[in-house]
Amino acid sequence: MPGNSFGQLFRITTWGESHGAAVGVVVDGCPAGLELAPSDIQFELDRRRPGQSRITTQRKEPDTVEILSGVFEGKTLGTPISLLVRNTDAISKSYEDIKDTYRPGHADFTYDARFGFRDYRGGGRSSARETVGRVAAGAIAKKILNLQGITTHGFVRSVGRIVAKKTDFDEIERNIVRCPDASKVDEKIELIDKVRREGDSIGGTVEVITKGLPPGLGSPVFNKIDADLAAALMSLGGIRGFEVGMGFEASKRKGSQVNDLLYKDKEGKLAFKTNNAGGLLGGITNGADLIVRIAIKPTSSISKVQKTVDKWGNPKDLVVKGRHDPCLCPRAVPIAEAMVNLVLADHLLLSRTARI
Amino acid sequence: MPGNSFGQLFRITTWGESHGAAVGVVVDGCPAGLELAPSDIQFELDRRRPGQSRITTQRKEPDTVEILSGVFEGKTLGTPISLLVRNTDAISKSYEDIKDTYRPGHADFTYDARFGFRDYRGGGRSSARETVGRVAAGAIAKKILNLQGITTHGFVRSVGRIVAKKTDFDEIERNIVRCPDASKVDEKIELIDKVRREGDSIGGTVEVITKGLPPGLGSPVFNKIDADLAAALMSLGGIRGFEVGMGFEASKRKGSQVNDLLYKDKEGKLAFKTNNAGGLLGGITNGADLIVRIAIKPTSSISKVQKTVDKWGNPKDLVVKGRHDPCLCPRAVPIAEAMVNLVLADHLLLSRTARI
Amino acid sequence: MPGNSFGQLFRITTWGESHGAAVGVVVDGCPAGLELAPSDIQFELDRRRPGQSRITTQRKEPDTVEILSGVFEGKTLGTPISLLVRNTDAISKSYEDIKDTYRPGHADFTYDARFGFRDYRGGGRSSARETVGRVAAGAIAKKILNLQGITTHGFVRSVGRIVAKKTDFDEIERNIVRCPDASKVDEKIELIDKVRREGDSIGGTVEVITKGLPPGLGSPVFNKIDADLAAALMSLGGIRGFEVGMGFEASKRKGSQVNDLLYKDKEGKLAFKTNNAGGLLGGITNGADLIVRIAIKPTSSISKVQKTVDKWGNPKDLVVKGRHDPCLCPRAVPIAEAMVNLVLADHLLLSRTARI
Amino acid sequence: MPGNSFGQLFRITTWGESHGAAVGVVVDGCPAGLELAPSDIQFELDRRRPGQSRITTQRKEPDTVEILSGVFEGKTLGTPISLLVRNTDAISKSYEDIKDTYRPGHADFTYDARFGFRDYRGGGRSSARETVGRVAAGAIAKKILNLQGITTHGFVRSVGRIVAKKTDFDEIERNIVRCPDASKVDEKIELIDKVRREGDSIGGTVEVITKGLPPGLGSPVFNKIDADLAAALMSLGGIRGFEVGMGFEASKRKGSQVNDLLYKDKEGKLAFKTNNAGGLLGGITNGADLIVRIAIKPTSSISKVQKTVDKWGNPKDLVVKGRHDPCLCPRAVPIAEAMVNLVLADHLLLSRTARI
Repeated sequence: MPGNSFGQLFRITTWGESHGAAVGVVVDGCPAGLELAPSDIQFELDRRRPGQSRITTQRKEPDTVEILSGVFEGKTLGTPISLLVRNTDAISKSYEDIKDTYRPGHADFTYDARFGFRDYRGGGRSSARETVGRVAAGAIAKKILNLQGITTHGFVRSVGRIVAKKTDFDEIERNIVRCPDASKVDEKIELIDKVRREGDSIGGTVEVITKGLPPGLGSPVFNKIDADLAAALMSLGGIRGFEVGMGFEASKRKGSQVNDLLYKDKEGKLAFKTNNAGGLLGGITNGADLIVRIAIKPTSSISKVQKTVDKWGNPKDLVVKGRHDPCLCPRAVPIAEAMVNLVLADHLLLSRTARI
Repeated sequence: MPGNSFGQLFRITTWGESHGAAVGVVVDGCPAGLELAPSDIQFELDRRRPGQSRITTQRKEPDTVEILSGVFEGKTLGTPISLLVRNTDAISKSYEDIKDTYRPGHADFTYDARFGFRDYRGGGRSSARETVGRVAAGAIAKKILNLQGITTHGFVRSVGRIVAKKTDFDEIERNIVRCPDASKVDEKIELIDKVRREGDSIGGTVEVITKGLPPGLGSPVFNKIDADLAAALMSLGGIRGFEVGMGFEASKRKGSQVNDLLYKDKEGKLAFKTNNAGGLLGGITNGADLIVRIAIKPTSSISKVQKTVDKWGNPKDLVVKGRHDPCLCPRAVPIAEAMVNLVLADHLLLSRTARI
Repeated sequence: MPGNSFGQLFRITTWGESHGAAVGVVVDGCPAGLELAPSDIQFELDRRRPGQSRITTQRKEPDTVEILSGVFEGKTLGTPISLLVRNTDAISKSYEDIKDTYRPGHADFTYDARFGFRDYRGGGRSSARETVGRVAAGAIAKKILNLQGITTHGFVRSVGRIVAKKTDFDEIERNIVRCPDASKVDEKIELIDKVRREGDSIGGTVEVITKGLPPGLGSPVFNKIDADLAAALMSLGGIRGFEVGMGFEASKRKGSQVNDLLYKDKEGKLAFKTNNAGGLLGGITNGADLIVRIAIKPTSSISKVQKTVDKWGNPKDLVVKGRHDPCLCPRAVPIAEAMVNLVLADHLLLSRTARI
Repeated sequence: MPGNSFGQLFRITTWGESHGAAVGVVVDGCPAGLELAPSDIQFELDRRRPGQSRITTQRKEPDTVEILSGVFEGKTLGTPISLLVRNTDAISKSYEDIKDTYRPGHADFTYDARFGFRDYRGGGRSSARETVGRVAAGAIAKKILNLQGITTHGFVRSVGRIVAKKTDFDEIERNIVRCPDASKVDEKIELIDKVRREGDSIGGTVEVITKGLPPGLGSPVFNKIDADLAAALMSLGGIRGFEVGMGFEASKRKGSQVNDLLYKDKEGKLAFKTNNAGGLLGGITNGADLIVRIAIKPTSSISKVQKTVDKWGNPKDLVVKGRHDPCLCPRAVPIAEAMVNLVLADHLLLSRTARI
């Protein structure tokens, strides 16, 4: 497969360049009979949209979605759902000067290496604008999961070295940094403001917790839930790491400190005393919360002068113009949620075929 | 796809339960004309084999591979290569007592949840024995890469909190813990010996570095090299995290500290002053070393008493018998290398179709 | 995979309902650097368009294609090519009366059986309008093949029992029935006119011959060229049979009458004295012309009264209104060519990976 | 995908050369909990085996299947089922003389063209021996279908120009030519005997009818049941044509003669007065019998002298030695049934995901 599709039974194909005519996605395999309105999708796109707050890029992209197929009289038909978002803020003028220059941290050089040339306007296909299609498709996956009582909650765990200690889902959308710990909000925002004033950027981590999953989702051995989630999330731009549950910390511990012990809970259901595994055993959901975390690098586009070269190897002093997020994390939250939802909706369908 | 295949053009399908008749793999898509002998595969299986040293499990499994198809007169035919390894140490007797008991950290409960029942002998399909097929297939991928001057080097970066500082490839196979830093070997071995004496286990990290990759490998957007590597490595048992290059550390830094600057090197080639990105930009190789790291949890099977339940929810005091690795890392090295090689061989073939 | 994608390395995903907002296709895997203009695609869409002549439906659908992504400065980027055609003649009014009635020969009943409901306007997804996406994508595949000197020629072999004896490629587009035998054109047109006047329809066969193929295309064993072509062509609506080379006639013959004997031709190349196999041996091209043929049923929509039932089983006397092709064959020619070109472009890319 | 796998959710990968160590198949995606014994598979292999009667090849291949994985305590585990059949009659001696000669009608030349060399012993991978894996896997698919009351019945419709008129399922296995019309059995056998005495071979057609299918199986648009069946059956060696229902005959008829009219039957179910469509509308089952037919060419290996060339183009007079079926049809019956069952089991699983 050429690389722009993801998922098996619930399968998406995204398309579009940052400054082309439009971006979009085709969702194939959505079961028939799901109620779906444009507003379901628009809601998530609005959470992803630039210009939401002073700590995100100030680009104006209304990102209005059009449903072109697959829905009839408010319900999905079981046929492909084609979603289209026109590019409106695509002013290519400012890109002439980087046409032949390789921006550090960007895919300019590698796209040239692979394809022989590239659409240099705004990063072309390698732009985060590609995630519009993912978020739109994820909104449909979310509806499928919600019908089963499954809910996904993304948030910014850390910005730089400032880490949220509490995990209060109600707090997340109350603050512009999507931090689940009210006591850390100001600190995070101040750090982002500070690096922006410096013409720099800052990394962080986003965590996604899914509640309400039944035990038994996940296809051994190569389509374990964690393998699929890792692929889903590492396929986003600027991600440098992925972990599940206790994550890298588990590599420092003893087995007696890491194993989650089973017991029978008050309702007579099997449960776990701890959740170091993050909801998975052997790549299959165990009924506990599914917990994943990704490391997001600091935005590559910074306004500090950087030394680089053009395509012929001539040295260049680069100052990236344009309006960029000083920290990718707040807007990454709905994107990460979308990828998690896409994986889980796919596995929910796959699980229907596990037994005779 | 049901979950036991991996890769696109170089595609493997593994099969087999820990205590079934055999384990194996079918490799489809290996180009015709590659010289291949059983010894190429046996070499890697021997690196993976139990009983290599006093810090690995003492089980005796000769793991002799048989090539059943796809090779004729010493060369691959372009047809599927079927590889078979008989299970010999499969003494099922000791598993009767865990037939109905859910071992903490194992997939017993989740396989029951998914499939309704399970082969309880030695973990069945969820056993690390499944990786025999991966390692055997990876040996073929390695030969393809080697022909292009691409070499993959895996090693144990850390055991518990003991971290190798130096990365000396020549040192790795000289010591039983596959540590690339001679000054840390004894410390790591002592720690493993200590937890074993305690009836416990210890986690660690394995790193894989690939040298000699041309720029331009990787299919945006969902089959970025890092996305495929994450899927490949997270699909192994007991892995809790994955990172590329600077990894999670990048989430704590500023853009000016993380971006790798380009320059023209002495031979006139474009190169990078640092390699924080781990060899990838936009998921495509940039010609620098590809660097990935995985977090491995401590072995779940420990001989300390653990509280758990059986399938009916009755409390059980479990002491896991049998012979287990106190630390999974040393034997995980050839397995992780195999997965990296499988991904890269696949992308090497895919890259042949990137341009008209 | 959910069913709306086709191909492996050159992979298309079509979407759209007959009377929805639009129909379209995403082409993933087109190599970078191919020159591509909207007119390349429009040319083929115009060959497929309704209202071309008095023997096709008189519906007016300009079917203007828009390239939304994947092309930059006149060349393909190696990223997905999204193609959009708005539906303009989609007057749904006339469909209210068949909302609950099952038209004989149509997929009304089976879509309800599968999905629980359907878009009843103009057949929804089961409409031949879906082939707009196939033809648009096929135009790109054709360009790839033409660069290698490979050309595909489709034509109407027979209408009813009137069979073209000669195969003159130059004649095909000179007549409205796309017949390659000038001496049969009038007879075929008269038959079509006659059945139309009767309110009836007529079947026929379409043949596609591809010249210039190198030996060696085709992936044994499940992706033989004939297997992939059969899937490609049988996936069109209204197709009842597929054959390659001598086809069903071979089932009546002896081996000594069917085997094509090899010889060395004047240029010293291996060649075949006959081409009963239609250009394939073991599913792999042998350098001779590739010849396939499909049986097309008579149009299901006829204006004669037909007995049927509605969804509750009540008997209905149905008269299909609207404007329908009395014979599907002439417009099926560019569609069949497109499917053949899609298969061959895919295999051309696949063949790059057959040898080390 | 490299070509040796088939199916989506119920997915098989076959492997093996005619004169290699073994042939086999891995079945991935079989739901857990299906009762499965080696005898279920052996039964179908015995129907396919050479040497069954005087009109088949007299080679002796016991073809004993071994289940290597995926079954535990008599039931499928939901993990891959690996099936192995050792090659026993693989006497390669007689193949030295055709090592460099291209046999007419065989894939010798095209395998060389694709892969650069080939396993020349008995056709290697292009041998019909590859179908052992298909038949073994098909036996599992059959069990899944039988549980739902779905039964598949293959038979030899015609040998040369001798066509069975009656379709009596009970008659099929009573005669060695698997003819469903007792009045045509002797005629067919005599014809086969005659061509064998002449050192020649004869073609024929095999038909497969499936009863008991629910309406609603089939994934529009590219995975219509007829498209998948066509791919499945055309991927067999020696097949020159495929048709469904009325097939090519429909291309000669008028719509009013072909459309199947609906009515409500005595039990109140929707049904069709005729079954010209062969059980499908829009590629989805309509509840009527599914009817497909394939054209099988006469065996390419004949003992008459044939003119051909070697790989360097030198003329050769070829007499194919060895023991070959004078007519492929009788042994093709279980193979064709297997392919039909594989497609239908896959679609039965897929249909579980069609609705929310």
